[in-house]
Amino acid sequence: MKLLRINHLGIATTGLSEAMARMARLFDLEADHVEAVPEQKVTTAFFPVGESSLEFLESTDAEGPIGKFIAKRGPGIHHICLEVDDVEAAVKMLMAKGVRMIDEAPRSGAHGCRVAFIHPSETGGVLMELAQSSPKA
Amino acid sequence: MKLLRINHLGIATTGLSEAMARMARLFDLEADHVEAVPEQKVTTAFFPVGESSLEFLESTDAEGPIGKFIAKRGPGIHHICLEVDDVEAAVKMLMAKGVRMIDEAPRSGAHGCRVAFIHPSETGGVLMELAQSSPKA
Repeated sequence: MKLLRINHLGIATTGLSEAMARMARLFDLEADHVEAVPEQKVTTAFFPVGESSLEFLESTDAEGPIGKFIAKRGPGIHHICLEVDDVEAAVKMLMAKGVRMIDEAPRSGAHGCRVAFIHPSETGGVLMELAQSSPKA
Repeated sequence: MKLLRINHLGIATTGLSEAMARMARLFDLEADHVEAVPEQKVTTAFFPVGESSLEFLESTDAEGPIGKFIAKRGPGIHHICLEVDDVEAAVKMLMAKGVRMIDEAPRSGAHGCRVAFIHPSETGGVLMELAQSSPKA
């Protein structure tokens, strides 16, 4: 499996509008994409940095994954998303090695990506997402 | 200030050799740079991903910043390092805006970079490092 780039870094925030104001104040940086992801109970905003993005995630439900994360650890970096060319093949290869996956098959993520999370017990406590970008039109 | 790229993502680990074994198992990825940074009481290993790196940090002293982080939160993502073209100018600009800095002047980091950390109270709980790469020979 070839890691192509850091697709994005996921950052849990208690308020998307405050996160946007901070990015503007610190770096004169605006979000280039805002998207609700109801399956994950979040609204997200992406800020481009080089070939990557910073993705801020605001929970829409205290029982969702970001709501629970913030309740336990407070706001901060939640996960890293690594881009691969073929996420289906990557998941199969990892499972063939006995790697524990949160997603045993890719599912839909933001931006029309196909994504799968590796279980953090395999990565030293880091939540890692693998993503394959949607084919360009 | 222009953010050029994610220079690296800093990940606190309890064991650098175990982190290396995990990266090899999961991604067939080897460290391209290992460095002791005594000022920060860590040994670090960098794994290249696109234009960025994953930097694993093992503490050499329980009283150092990574030792304290792991004692409090366990291993996991510790900081994000954003590359700028002029870190001296970036720090001056942030301080002129009243932004609270951990480093009020750039100092030396790994890889011969000049670095400065923004206080996490300014960034929604995310520890952000600004770095300027050393000039290429």
